[in-house]
Amino acid sequence: MKFKIAILGTGNVANHLVPALENAGHTITEIYARDINDAEKLTEKVYVADAKSDLDFSDSKAEIFILAVSDAAISDLADEIILPEESILVHTSGTVPLSMLGYSSASYTGIFYPLQTFSKGREVDFVDVPFLIESEDQETLQKLKKLAKSLSPSVFVVKSKDRLALHVAAVFASNFTNHMIRLSEEIMGRQGLDFEMLKPLIIESVSKSLELGAKRAQTGPAIRGDYGTLDHHFQFLNYNEQVAEIYRLISQDIIDVN
Amino acid sequence: MKFKIAILGTGNVANHLVPALENAGHTITEIYARDINDAEKLTEKVYVADAKSDLDFSDSKAEIFILAVSDAAISDLADEIILPEESILVHTSGTVPLSMLGYSSASYTGIFYPLQTFSKGREVDFVDVPFLIESEDQETLQKLKKLAKSLSPSVFVVKSKDRLALHVAAVFASNFTNHMIRLSEEIMGRQGLDFEMLKPLIIESVSKSLELGAKRAQTGPAIRGDYGTLDHHFQFLNYNEQVAEIYRLISQDIIDVN
Repeated sequence: MKFKIAILGTGNVANHLVPALENAGHTITEIYARDINDAEKLTEKVYVADAKSDLDFSDSKAEIFILAVSDAAISDLADEIILPEESILVHTSGTVPLSMLGYSSASYTGIFYPLQTFSKGREVDFVDVPFLIESEDQETLQKLKKLAKSLSPSVFVVKSKDRLALHVAAVFASNFTNHMIRLSEEIMGRQGLDFEMLKPLIIESVSKSLELGAKRAQTGPAIRGDYGTLDHHFQFLNYNEQVAEIYRLISQDIIDVN
Repeated sequence: MKFKIAILGTGNVANHLVPALENAGHTITEIYARDINDAEKLTEKVYVADAKSDLDFSDSKAEIFILAVSDAAISDLADEIILPEESILVHTSGTVPLSMLGYSSASYTGIFYPLQTFSKGREVDFVDVPFLIESEDQETLQKLKKLAKSLSPSVFVVKSKDRLALHVAAVFASNFTNHMIRLSEEIMGRQGLDFEMLKPLIIESVSKSLELGAKRAQTGPAIRGDYGTLDHHFQFLNYNEQVAEIYRLISQDIIDVN
């Protein structure tokens, strides 16, 4: 099933999504940006698409309208966009509730959320990206599923009530994992040690964790109940009370859950 | 420069090290284990090596003796082993100080520490493993450097005074990163959500962190200063006070260091 799709937004998600959708056989009819120059730049990435900087889509041939914009911009665009009959309006955010599209002129609404971190200049292959979709309308949900499946084998229907849990879990998995690496970098740098020596350990630890499950993969002084080492490390970190407390608290939690 | 090497121990490190050393052109002369059956089993992995269960190495042709045993076993083995003249005794631990080999009969001592997490059944290519070496004797240090370089391009001389910092940094980078993944798994599981959907995000986040540096790679509600979301997440986690406190403390630290 091939769709005609209009994209609103020219940020990281839109930039990754537009060529991928065309490659999958869909047609990009329009690309909207507040600044027409931004829209034109992105239309160059595809075979044929009109650049637009106004929100009147009443003559559009598209069936699906994707709001690939920042969380803060979603509600204003949804309220102002003028859509043709029988159109589906979706956003690509993991945190904005579906109800935020409720006052739009769309016949159907949904969420089409690629769960990945997109950065300029880093290629992302959508085959490896899970799509989390939602709609209150069953036919819309089936269409979004087909659209997602055309990009990735990994498609999950996630209800709004589960989005908060998912987001909290993603913060631990992504932002907090990154901060642990940050603290590690700083400890090494402070001692004049080359952080490069820890990179292979990090890569192997994370692979092992994802393969075996983090419970089985855990090693180190906390899970061994090696209180002597834990105390040494805590003392070592006394130059930064907050980091020492992070060390103590995570170690305690590793001890408690095992 | 090729060496004659005796290995003491038959655990994960020894099992990975023995075939790698032989592949690099060195000769494994003896493999020691308290239980001769364990030693014999590991000798089968190499072309020629004698299995031993006694610590009298006075007739050994080896020049380098590698204690690839648990931290707790190092000091006893070092004290009891009988070594030939001019021999070098090293251990493979990242945490046991060099001085622990001080009462041995070795002419020279050192540390030969592959900084990686080894597990049974998981292949590790030493080309990707940094070796951290140390010795108070310059000639020994050069030999250990050559031995390490024959296995991996990544060799670092690390002094005992830096080992504590290195170990603390490794706990953050490896054990704590793993625990963040564990907490994420539990939040997903508790909500009945499939943890699979977060795996690509974790892989990409860690790659990005190692490539750009964790400071630049950080995203999420804390670094955006999005206190509304932080508060929502903290409330969501109120079923587990300790995990909520971990969330609060790491978020605070992300805010403070940026």
